[in-house]
Amino acid sequence: MNGAQSLLETLVGADIDVCFMNPGTSEMHFVAALDAVPRMRSILGLFEGVVTGAADGYARMTGRPAVNLLHLGPGLTNSLANVHNARRAYSPMLLIVGDHATYHKRFDAPLTSDIQGLARPLSDWLRTPLRADNLAQVAAEAVSAALTPPGKVATLILPADVSWGPAERAAKPIAPPAAARVDSPRVSAIARVLKSGEPAVLLMNGTALREPALLAAERIARKTSARLFSDTFVGRLPRGAGRPVISRLGYFAERAEQDLRGTRHLILVGTKAPAAFFAYPGKPSSLVPEGCTVHHLAAPEEDCVEALEHLADELGAERSGVRLCELQRAPRPQGALDARSIAAAISAVLPDHAILVDEGNTDGSLTSIATTSSAPHDWLLNTGGSIGLGLPLAVGAAVACPDRKVLCLEGDGSAMYTIQALWTMVREQLDVTTVILANRSYRILNIELGRVGASSAGPRAKDMLDISRPELDFVSLARGMGVPASAPRTAEELCSELERAFHEPGPHLIECKI
Amino acid sequence: MNGAQSLLETLVGADIDVCFMNPGTSEMHFVAALDAVPRMRSILGLFEGVVTGAADGYARMTGRPAVNLLHLGPGLTNSLANVHNARRAYSPMLLIVGDHATYHKRFDAPLTSDIQGLARPLSDWLRTPLRADNLAQVAAEAVSAALTPPGKVATLILPADVSWGPAERAAKPIAPPAAARVDSPRVSAIARVLKSGEPAVLLMNGTALREPALLAAERIARKTSARLFSDTFVGRLPRGAGRPVISRLGYFAERAEQDLRGTRHLILVGTKAPAAFFAYPGKPSSLVPEGCTVHHLAAPEEDCVEALEHLADELGAERSGVRLCELQRAPRPQGALDARSIAAAISAVLPDHAILVDEGNTDGSLTSIATTSSAPHDWLLNTGGSIGLGLPLAVGAAVACPDRKVLCLEGDGSAMYTIQALWTMVREQLDVTTVILANRSYRILNIELGRVGASSAGPRAKDMLDISRPELDFVSLARGMGVPASAPRTAEELCSELERAFHEPGPHLIECKI
Repeated sequence: MNGAQSLLETLVGADIDVCFMNPGTSEMHFVAALDAVPRMRSILGLFEGVVTGAADGYARMTGRPAVNLLHLGPGLTNSLANVHNARRAYSPMLLIVGDHATYHKRFDAPLTSDIQGLARPLSDWLRTPLRADNLAQVAAEAVSAALTPPGKVATLILPADVSWGPAERAAKPIAPPAAARVDSPRVSAIARVLKSGEPAVLLMNGTALREPALLAAERIARKTSARLFSDTFVGRLPRGAGRPVISRLGYFAERAEQDLRGTRHLILVGTKAPAAFFAYPGKPSSLVPEGCTVHHLAAPEEDCVEALEHLADELGAERSGVRLCELQRAPRPQGALDARSIAAAISAVLPDHAILVDEGNTDGSLTSIATTSSAPHDWLLNTGGSIGLGLPLAVGAAVACPDRKVLCLEGDGSAMYTIQALWTMVREQLDVTTVILANRSYRILNIELGRVGASSAGPRAKDMLDISRPELDFVSLARGMGVPASAPRTAEELCSELERAFHEPGPHLIECKI
Repeated sequence: MNGAQSLLETLVGADIDVCFMNPGTSEMHFVAALDAVPRMRSILGLFEGVVTGAADGYARMTGRPAVNLLHLGPGLTNSLANVHNARRAYSPMLLIVGDHATYHKRFDAPLTSDIQGLARPLSDWLRTPLRADNLAQVAAEAVSAALTPPGKVATLILPADVSWGPAERAAKPIAPPAAARVDSPRVSAIARVLKSGEPAVLLMNGTALREPALLAAERIARKTSARLFSDTFVGRLPRGAGRPVISRLGYFAERAEQDLRGTRHLILVGTKAPAAFFAYPGKPSSLVPEGCTVHHLAAPEEDCVEALEHLADELGAERSGVRLCELQRAPRPQGALDARSIAAAISAVLPDHAILVDEGNTDGSLTSIATTSSAPHDWLLNTGGSIGLGLPLAVGAAVACPDRKVLCLEGDGSAMYTIQALWTMVREQLDVTTVILANRSYRILNIELGRVGASSAGPRAKDMLDISRPELDFVSLARGMGVPASAPRTAEELCSELERAFHEPGPHLIECKI
């Protein structure tokens, strides 16, 4: 057995059995070991941003890390934008970055770089094993590190000779620490705050958005005057018919201020105090209203489910009679294709228990709203603000949940960062329907340009936000990667294209020109 | 005037007047300043790897840095693979990375990350100005840092409030240091070595590959027994008819060993001692033959042109009668399309003074050879080994040299990392003809798999090197981004497609299925 085989056996022994990869020469022993360890499912991406974005989607849906196999420093850096997003979703991530053989590094061959330095800013755990007979043990530690609440980025740099050197055995799994429990005095203090009857908001993210946590939060909201909000961007939120209703904090600061106006107590569960996405001249960064006290019920790494259930019990909130969302699909739209009719179409035909990956940005906001009371689904958003996550995230979610339909709502500008993900969808025959909202613009920037007070902007500035020249043809792009694609011209056509796509196995792409 | 305007005026005042960009909200004041400083040409990329790869191509052809405008940490990390390649080409690079406003960072908004930490491993110079009235001066220093021989990566992190804050004026350009001259004793010592008549090789890269340096090297080779080699991967090499002939060190270590066998003196000019691209079990990393002494004529940051001319003079090598390559185009090929006929076709029809961007990898190696004595051209290679450079490099070379034709020879696997570059070619109407060598495989890895001794590799491993499932259709992909494209079926068709593409303005793509 060589190091690579001991590594793969250790991983599958810890139930880490999916690997997204874009390997190179220094990873060839890892790749060769796939035949010796057939339980490890390996999935190829044509670009590393697809690899880590897919691992994020997989982690959000399973709670487990996939392996990300990357080729030296450049493979790592190509992957980091979606590692940034994954971190902000509290997704457990396990990066394995191949490196030159330990003795080869001093020759400064062309692909040499400071991989540790590049990995450190986005890694919670970082190790470079130097001996093959120690690799399995380090791998077991890496898995445990990734699974440490609320989900961490563990990076294992794997020199080629550590991969090919002799090893004896796999290592046993190491149990990750459990989420810390919130103690009773903290829960009681917040119960007293809520009993005061003063206006309160529970602001939630991370594990506070799991279904049992939402049910407990809903009990609390019924018993007190507290209102329920999630952060603007969440890793995964179960919503739609049959789920508790939770509001979403507005993206634009003035909207978020309106959401929180008058709040005297802001109670954080699995998140931190809200701040504006960007700074704007003369406007405050903090979104906490003046005179509002911030309380910490549970940090992201603490047990948010138990904390909320404990709080609900302490308040004497009843378990029965919880208000759940009633199914209210939009009527099937007719006529012109625009943001409004697209939203209605998706709301109307969304399959039960779909996974809705939403990187629709500006023109997707109506769809975000219209699906609130549609069929029950999981809603996956871009948590870190680095666009180009949606398509890879859909890949990973579909790998994690082969029995569910994935709808990926994607802006045209965002889609182009990681368009290669379409190819992996075909290769793995994933049930992903991608809806491209083609507004031919970085539209959000046209809005932000005014908001940041960039008053001198003229035609040369606006040209940098315009992606209409040349026009992207997503039907051609999709077909170029083997994805069946169409561009409906009316809302009726969109509805039938969506239904056909959900019905037929494998990926589809629908370009909506708006 | 705000900080951003003072920045742009400082840049154009230093003759830095092209900016490749993929901006976001935090860069909106930079973008808005484009209208106030119209001399700055701004070119949009749909992905940041296109931005930095284009800046590399521009720098290789002009010797000057373009500006790279990037959006926070994720924009930077998306760009870094091609920064790695640019560094290995000694290209002057100027990265401007927008960041949150200084006072906003402590709120840890979603896009916050440790940009300094991410930039440091690949930056030779790194500064974050904290005041708008100081930005212009820091920008002048950044330009000078980028232009420091042999070409450096300078990274300026630009907080949003430094961009929008008040500034008074642009800063004056700061002259970069000149390349250090090589002193006479060093030249004389190497002249004595060469006069010994023992087998010698001049191994060259960087400025040692400029045309006057090559002419001096050719005089030295005529006067002594020295043979001339370039490194395997070079940033830019003038070659073809009318240029001195220089051999290329083999990529595979056994080939490079053969190239250097029997050499007693290895004289380095603008490079370092050669090493294998990767380590292989049981094989040496160094490519310096046993018993061979390594001599340093000039380091990359030293004046290689003068050092070679000085050495040639000291050896009494005549200026006249230098051997130059004779034009020897391959005959126009006929019949089946394969690596050999593609090589012949390109050799046959390459326009005079074309720029040949060569990321053809395995199936491109015959073209690399066949063009040696074709029409005079500049040859641009992937210096850092991070594939996905070719298409962006072609963008930048074409922007730098609007009066020349660019031929981009590109592997299918490599093309997919930064395929978005095609869109920028259309937008800027660049005369780039891209030839895709579609072998449906990461073929180099199929070769390396055996070479690294990964003997356990079976069908599951080989599937990870196979990109035939689904088949990529580059004609569709190109058309999806507005590039006229074709897929010739014979060598004759390829020749006429190439001629048509060179004749018609704007970009073209030719997919060669092999």
